[in-house]
Amino acid sequence: MAPPTRIGLAGLAVMGQNLALNIAEKGFPISVYNRTSSKVDETVERAKQEGNLPLYGFHDPEEFVQSIQKPRVIIMLVKAGAPVDQTIETLSKYMEKGDCIIDGGNEWYENTERREQAMTELGLLYLGMGVSGGEEGARNGPSLMPGGSFEAYKYIEDILLKVAAQVPDSGPCVTYIGKGGSGNFVKMVHNGIEYGDMQLIAEAYDVLKSVGKLSNEELQSVFSEWNKGELLSFLIEITADIFGIKDDKGDGYLVDKVLDKTGMKGTGKWTVQQAADLSVAAPTIAASLDSRFLSGLKEERVEAAKVFKSGGFGDVLTEQDVDKAKLIDDVRQALYASKICSYAQGMNLIRAKSIEKGWDLKLGELARIWKGGCIIRAIFLDRIKKAYDRNPDLANLLVDPEFAKEIIDRQSAWRRVVCLAINSGISTPGMSTSLAYFDTYRRERLPANLVQAQRDYFGAHTYERVDMEGHFHTEWFKIAKQLKN
Amino acid sequence: MAPPTRIGLAGLAVMGQNLALNIAEKGFPISVYNRTSSKVDETVERAKQEGNLPLYGFHDPEEFVQSIQKPRVIIMLVKAGAPVDQTIETLSKYMEKGDCIIDGGNEWYENTERREQAMTELGLLYLGMGVSGGEEGARNGPSLMPGGSFEAYKYIEDILLKVAAQVPDSGPCVTYIGKGGSGNFVKMVHNGIEYGDMQLIAEAYDVLKSVGKLSNEELQSVFSEWNKGELLSFLIEITADIFGIKDDKGDGYLVDKVLDKTGMKGTGKWTVQQAADLSVAAPTIAASLDSRFLSGLKEERVEAAKVFKSGGFGDVLTEQDVDKAKLIDDVRQALYASKICSYAQGMNLIRAKSIEKGWDLKLGELARIWKGGCIIRAIFLDRIKKAYDRNPDLANLLVDPEFAKEIIDRQSAWRRVVCLAINSGISTPGMSTSLAYFDTYRRERLPANLVQAQRDYFGAHTYERVDMEGHFHTEWFKIAKQLKN
Repeated sequence: MAPPTRIGLAGLAVMGQNLALNIAEKGFPISVYNRTSSKVDETVERAKQEGNLPLYGFHDPEEFVQSIQKPRVIIMLVKAGAPVDQTIETLSKYMEKGDCIIDGGNEWYENTERREQAMTELGLLYLGMGVSGGEEGARNGPSLMPGGSFEAYKYIEDILLKVAAQVPDSGPCVTYIGKGGSGNFVKMVHNGIEYGDMQLIAEAYDVLKSVGKLSNEELQSVFSEWNKGELLSFLIEITADIFGIKDDKGDGYLVDKVLDKTGMKGTGKWTVQQAADLSVAAPTIAASLDSRFLSGLKEERVEAAKVFKSGGFGDVLTEQDVDKAKLIDDVRQALYASKICSYAQGMNLIRAKSIEKGWDLKLGELARIWKGGCIIRAIFLDRIKKAYDRNPDLANLLVDPEFAKEIIDRQSAWRRVVCLAINSGISTPGMSTSLAYFDTYRRERLPANLVQAQRDYFGAHTYERVDMEGHFHTEWFKIAKQLKN
Repeated sequence: MAPPTRIGLAGLAVMGQNLALNIAEKGFPISVYNRTSSKVDETVERAKQEGNLPLYGFHDPEEFVQSIQKPRVIIMLVKAGAPVDQTIETLSKYMEKGDCIIDGGNEWYENTERREQAMTELGLLYLGMGVSGGEEGARNGPSLMPGGSFEAYKYIEDILLKVAAQVPDSGPCVTYIGKGGSGNFVKMVHNGIEYGDMQLIAEAYDVLKSVGKLSNEELQSVFSEWNKGELLSFLIEITADIFGIKDDKGDGYLVDKVLDKTGMKGTGKWTVQQAADLSVAAPTIAASLDSRFLSGLKEERVEAAKVFKSGGFGDVLTEQDVDKAKLIDDVRQALYASKICSYAQGMNLIRAKSIEKGWDLKLGELARIWKGGCIIRAIFLDRIKKAYDRNPDLANLLVDPEFAKEIIDRQSAWRRVVCLAINSGISTPGMSTSLAYFDTYRRERLPANLVQAQRDYFGAHTYERVDMEGHFHTEWFKIAKQLKN
């Protein structure tokens, strides 16, 4: 054994194991610890098998902490919430002033800020670091979003730069995000955007399959083709893969046997709630969350389908005669245009929070570190980075000249797909809500004047005028009554 | 002066004044108090002018409390949040065991639960009572949603039954809602539904005006006509009124001079956040909130409109040749069908909370007390009440036989309107998201299988199967890799 090691990692579920092995592989000796000690032995064994990596296992928390060089840095990868507090309690009692704890889980940002404050009182530093890329990313290069103590970030910057995914011409997928809980917040919105991407892809699949009658073979080839162009991304790639996999328990393709009930964790929900809190419209992300909720009501849907089938209409309302090649091209464009809207929402949510909290987040830099390692990695993110390079104060991605042009080129196809889906009775909540977002944002005059007149009518909430300054109230009821007499 | 009075009211802004006068007019002597004493004198003066009503003003909080008969009941109508706590502090020190405080504001339900607990420790009873109907409703008969101490409710049930709006054949618009913060929660969802109604009406207006080219005179006549049928409601009625009112500061109609920026308070936001928390899809209400957010970005929208106008498309994309009479009829049907979806979401949100909190709320009874007095009062609520009378365990309003039939009859018109709007570049986020909600809920099979396969691919989240029990995990990546070789 060759401690003192450079860094420690506590919490050895698959993500933790993989991140520890990744760090060791990059040449940084690492100590690992887990409450259930079999996980420690498992990780040590893997380190041996994967190339005698400099990884050292400990069953005792004190020995674990003592084995790390000072100032000590320990990454926790345990479940968000109470387990994080427990782990901090276990470890912090052996740590000394200037040492640092990093939470690598999907934690609610306010918990991180609470803990950072508590740690400060003990003289310890704290980071909340979003880690994206799933198990595979953790092992081979994740996207890392560390926020909190800049001093602590500097301790381990050299490690993070090596451990993160490396993207040619744009560097390692890590940057110091900002103060407080900003790393967790950015990771949360990343996940919300991921919800949006997955929902939009599912809708594209639904339209192509249910209206276009594409087979799984055709779907695989369509998504593979898409993955060579503007949609090139990890999620499109794995979607193509999925359509190619046969059922190992029966006939046909596995995707058709998967139950249409989608699970979820907390981050999508938090994203939607934060958007509401910050007065940011994020309808595409919200539609993705709602779709997951409704997918969960499988039994209710089965019953509802019966009610409406007996009323005369089925799953697909009317079979449409479609030109397959044209449909595929239209759907690609609709998916891309919707994706722009979804990212515009996510980015504006991050900016709104950054302003509220004084985090001074750099949106273009976030797009850069999402280019590799994480679930939403895509060629598309390079366009976003460039948009913010052109104009860091861009009000909305939609009005960036390049994106605006891309939308203008695609809007006819986008409208065709959504209307085709509507007329076929196929819901495309993500695509249609993205289109509504676009058509709302680009309109100088909305019917909100009527809503405001209503509010003044029944609640004396006052209104502004288009032609003069000030707040006005009208006795609508009295005047209307006079007019009726 | 003739104290002891029957009840007290603190907080004499317009709502408070009006409710106090309403109570006095129903024959219940009332004491009133306000921190700013001019409001007290104003209210006393109004009570004189409106018929020597038995209303007694106090400038001193102790005298105010002492003037009320025991057990004392005091309604507060002050701003939600800190002012409520201050008012409680001011008054409670003069109150005695068994006395009761009622908060009539739009308070966050958890604040009410916290205060109820604190009051219990002082031996005081507490109610959080939603009051809907605006100023006019408060004066002439609001819809009342009292929740909290049942004992306290019983003290003043006789008053509430008289003060509330009276609806022929269905009684006074008040009922004991349930324990804890249930009265505030129900009022919050009521407001969320109100957001939905207003947004849907605004979209109907937008389509009729922007695509159908209806004048304000024609709009007034359309909404007046609609107010004789299935859409009969307070909000449709005032909308018709609004279109008839001329600008008093210039030419033309006032509605055209009102700025298209909509204000809001907290309840719509809370509704959307609670829906996310409870895993209930409420996209119509969320679309209404987002529309308010986007309406607020007036300057950004003006800039965006320029960007896209220069890219070749204007506010209305292509002028459509429409049959006005047909369009009006289609829009009416689309509005009605969307409204069903919005209420289905609100009702299911209330039920989910009721289950979580063990409140045992009666959805049909809530529909009944919303039939009069409040902003969403409508003939439509009677249908909802009847649906829950038929089946108190109805999973969703959409599958009630009557509502299902109404939707089946209207779905073609609904789809026509949304597609017409999309092709005209007019966003109808409320109507389109309602339609997507319907088409999602009524489908036995959604593309959520793909989302679940993706989640298992990159995060090993496992999936269920359509044909056998259990949770499964597939090594998608490994298999796909093998297939590629």
